[in-house]
Amino acid sequence: MTSEFIDPRDLDFLLHDWLGVERLTRHAAYADHSRDTFDAILELSRRLAADHFATHYKKADRVEPVLADGKVHVIPEIAAAIRAYAEAGLSAASFAPEHGGLGLPHVVEAAAMAHFMAANVATAAYPMLTAGNARVLVRFGTPAQIEAFALPEIAGSWTGTMCLSEPQAGSSLGDITTRATFDADDPLGPRYRLTGNKMWISGGDHDIAPNIVHLVLAKIPGADGALPPGTAGISLFIVPKILPDGTRNDIAVAGLNHKMGYRGTTNCLLNFGELGGATGWRVGAAGQGLAIMFHMMNEARIMIGLGAAALACRGYRQSLDYARERRQGRQVGGKDLAGGKNPAAPQVSIIAHADVKRMLLAQKAFAEGALALVLYSARLVDEDRVGGDAESAALLGLLTPVAKSWPSEFGLAANDLAIQIHGGYGYTRDFDVEQIYRDNRLNPIHEGTHGIQAADLLGRKILRDKGAALDLLGSRIIASAGRATLVDELRPMAGRLLRDWARLSDVVDALLARDDPARALDNASPFLSAFGHIVVAWLWLDQALVLRSAEGRDPAFRAGKLLACRYFFAFELPKAEALLAPVATFCDVAATMPDAAF
Amino acid sequence: MTSEFIDPRDLDFLLHDWLGVERLTRHAAYADHSRDTFDAILELSRRLAADHFATHYKKADRVEPVLADGKVHVIPEIAAAIRAYAEAGLSAASFAPEHGGLGLPHVVEAAAMAHFMAANVATAAYPMLTAGNARVLVRFGTPAQIEAFALPEIAGSWTGTMCLSEPQAGSSLGDITTRATFDADDPLGPRYRLTGNKMWISGGDHDIAPNIVHLVLAKIPGADGALPPGTAGISLFIVPKILPDGTRNDIAVAGLNHKMGYRGTTNCLLNFGELGGATGWRVGAAGQGLAIMFHMMNEARIMIGLGAAALACRGYRQSLDYARERRQGRQVGGKDLAGGKNPAAPQVSIIAHADVKRMLLAQKAFAEGALALVLYSARLVDEDRVGGDAESAALLGLLTPVAKSWPSEFGLAANDLAIQIHGGYGYTRDFDVEQIYRDNRLNPIHEGTHGIQAADLLGRKILRDKGAALDLLGSRIIASAGRATLVDELRPMAGRLLRDWARLSDVVDALLARDDPARALDNASPFLSAFGHIVVAWLWLDQALVLRSAEGRDPAFRAGKLLACRYFFAFELPKAEALLAPVATFCDVAATMPDAAF
Repeated sequence: MTSEFIDPRDLDFLLHDWLGVERLTRHAAYADHSRDTFDAILELSRRLAADHFATHYKKADRVEPVLADGKVHVIPEIAAAIRAYAEAGLSAASFAPEHGGLGLPHVVEAAAMAHFMAANVATAAYPMLTAGNARVLVRFGTPAQIEAFALPEIAGSWTGTMCLSEPQAGSSLGDITTRATFDADDPLGPRYRLTGNKMWISGGDHDIAPNIVHLVLAKIPGADGALPPGTAGISLFIVPKILPDGTRNDIAVAGLNHKMGYRGTTNCLLNFGELGGATGWRVGAAGQGLAIMFHMMNEARIMIGLGAAALACRGYRQSLDYARERRQGRQVGGKDLAGGKNPAAPQVSIIAHADVKRMLLAQKAFAEGALALVLYSARLVDEDRVGGDAESAALLGLLTPVAKSWPSEFGLAANDLAIQIHGGYGYTRDFDVEQIYRDNRLNPIHEGTHGIQAADLLGRKILRDKGAALDLLGSRIIASAGRATLVDELRPMAGRLLRDWARLSDVVDALLARDDPARALDNASPFLSAFGHIVVAWLWLDQALVLRSAEGRDPAFRAGKLLACRYFFAFELPKAEALLAPVATFCDVAATMPDAAF
Repeated sequence: MTSEFIDPRDLDFLLHDWLGVERLTRHAAYADHSRDTFDAILELSRRLAADHFATHYKKADRVEPVLADGKVHVIPEIAAAIRAYAEAGLSAASFAPEHGGLGLPHVVEAAAMAHFMAANVATAAYPMLTAGNARVLVRFGTPAQIEAFALPEIAGSWTGTMCLSEPQAGSSLGDITTRATFDADDPLGPRYRLTGNKMWISGGDHDIAPNIVHLVLAKIPGADGALPPGTAGISLFIVPKILPDGTRNDIAVAGLNHKMGYRGTTNCLLNFGELGGATGWRVGAAGQGLAIMFHMMNEARIMIGLGAAALACRGYRQSLDYARERRQGRQVGGKDLAGGKNPAAPQVSIIAHADVKRMLLAQKAFAEGALALVLYSARLVDEDRVGGDAESAALLGLLTPVAKSWPSEFGLAANDLAIQIHGGYGYTRDFDVEQIYRDNRLNPIHEGTHGIQAADLLGRKILRDKGAALDLLGSRIIASAGRATLVDELRPMAGRLLRDWARLSDVVDALLARDDPARALDNASPFLSAFGHIVVAWLWLDQALVLRSAEGRDPAFRAGKLLACRYFFAFELPKAEALLAPVATFCDVAATMPDAAF
């Protein structure tokens, strides 16, 4: 008896009642769609995820990818799952019809992807990365490049990667040393020979698909043969595993990383050009590599948040099932703390215990809060695509690091509680929750660590524009709180949210007034966590407003959402102020700690 | 280049400067000892842990115990480590000389054990459990039982377990159904035949030692053949794997649990009496089983906290080494948030980054704070043993659930940061931190989950005695704060601590005044976390007071401890108030959540 890993009622509520995705069909790009086609895609995804992705979740963890004879092999169930995904047309879901796509809004694609990530995040990573890769090519590639490399990805025949990090350059991309030497112009664009080593390449090699399209960051040497320093000298190249003439490109798998979890996604060290130079075609202008790649990275960041949210949902639902089935203990009753229980009475389901309910409700608040945050962000992607208004773009920029990091941090906290509800059983591999927890632990690391997201949020997205994007968000938060103030049962929460937002704004003002950039980011990480908590509290309150009029919805569902909202405000939101405390006082105790004092 | 996993300067400071363990030698029980013998034991332990325990840390994770032909096999390095431990006399460390022991104080034994737990917590679990088992026998067994079963454990020849849980009775021990039928009296005591199934038995079977002494909770049927309900009917039995006549007892290994971590410690499902009844001798009076077992469980709870603290220390020290070696990025400088870095300059060690320092300092504050809490509790065990004053016993009772749970919760949080500092590398099995994290995840579960500890703290230890033990602790906290108020640099922290203590006391008073036991424990878990944060803040401030006069200590060490104290007050202590918020308002949103609303 496994319930759906993602509550279909919640997904339906979020997309239709709350985000009003049907309104997107007013735009020409999505005019061929309707609520019916959206719902059909979601139902198809739910079913495919259950039938083809969830089925090898544990096996893909137990039987890790292996490197043999220079090739990486994975269990065959992964290829079968991706084939089913492609055959259903999902690899083309959000691409335009002229590229063979279905033209779905990103927010619907993301909601569909949530089912796959909840079922098997490591297998779902292949189509997720491939779609991001193809989207870069569709946007920045030439028609010939799109036809040669993007279309097979959109059709689901090939997979794609992004090759950014190197052993000596992870977060610090300006330090990459992969070298691209100009060879000649040809119909696929300016052709280069690449040499260098790329680390942490998810899907870097495998036997799932006949070809892999690597998008590789590299530097073009200057006239003196030296590589330009910093990020400004980085360009982007298409480097396929198999060249258009059918021969293997000069790419060797130098090693596989053996991970705590997320094992079904191969993770490789790739050596380019050991035999003289891998063939690559430049995408976009020289020196524009990082700027172009940020399009894929930004999309990937939201999808990482989606994966973390999906795993949080799954852990919640599985521990809910367990709590309903497992009988243990009795309820406290009467006046006596110890003796109010009748030992002769039958044991109760553990969901009857207040502390188990608390752990379930915390998970619901984290998981559904994270899902709301990610889908809200995905909706902004669509608004940005079709409308191109500055407000959507600014809000998306502001929320992207939060949509990546908050689900990663608190989705993992939710999974921790899912284990705890299972007790000792949760620590064994007989249940799924320990694997979910191990899988989810990757999310605060890849696509930019928590610390990198924090610096992006506070440095680039808030302080650099003097809080302009922050004010746009603030006006939305204040508007929601204003509406909630008119509702008796929501008014206290509205007040609390306004106070916390004012507090955060004051902290930002103080940081701006201090004008000391070298120190402004010292406590960016607790700022990011606090910011995320306030944003998620707002999204819960905003959902609560919509829920009140969602009269067609199951009353138990509505009650549950409202209680999760209340839980978040009572148990979680107070932590935002505590997290902001050291930021507000410019506490430099960590930043100035001398090395010798550790 | 591996530093010691536990900073020997810190252990030395905690034991001597802060806890004044040498004063214990004034008591007759410890009069044969001196600072020199204590220090010799610690140095011996540090060395043995490095040479015999750390060496198979990863292998014991990779090569799990196997069950073959009804026997459990572990890697031979575990037996060799335990042999070295016994040959050094450490299995007898804290037992009295008349039992072949060294008569060491418990706090020194715990400090020595910290080295072993940091080096290999799963291997260290065998002697830890064995010592707890032997201590029950020494205290409650007959001379014949002690000679037959405890002395081989103290000598390090045999190991011991505690068999409490059953598949249907984990946290709810009153529901056990293992049955003990009286057989006959014999020189080893009243002999019974036991039948039943015991779950989660750590060290339940293995090929490390020739015999295993199981201490088994079971119920003696009444005249009608029925088992008495509840915990009052539970008795305790010695059930050895091999009987005194050399034959195998009727105990079968029905299964091995496959765990996320902590894998070197075998964890078994044992079936007693499949062939008619396992032979067991009762310890203590009938019906006193749980009361006796609590002595072992209480000791084990503190040792679980110690293990969690030791793993936190190890993760801290290993990520510190990594942060000093790994070069990545450049420091922010100048006025421009983005551009203040010179890309042509060499990369810096990541310890230069403020956010990395923050993650290191947080770990230091958690790890050394947890270690201080556990050793303070172990010191109370000694005071209770030698002095037997009511205050020590009451404080020990109050702090035991905290000493178990706080290190388990925040030691794991520290390990999470140790992974984060390693970036992608920390998620791979090439480094130790991912295993430390998996190992430590067990600690919030075994020997009573977090929720069980929370109910024990708030229900039994605080509300039941109307806050009497809490007031004893309060007087110590207020005394420390009073002394700190006289020191300029500590005064603000003293004020904050007094405010938070007053806040917590008010919350307890409100719970007492409300007099609604059925609801009083609804939010016991956040109360426990808040309580732990305030207690650890106090212990940090108390250490800071002692550090000021510790003039012989390395100045960098003193500075580091003071900064960790300041960090804890600035970044962590504010969370206590946030955690108390729902407790203070009697928030019942979780406790009253209807099942259908999840």
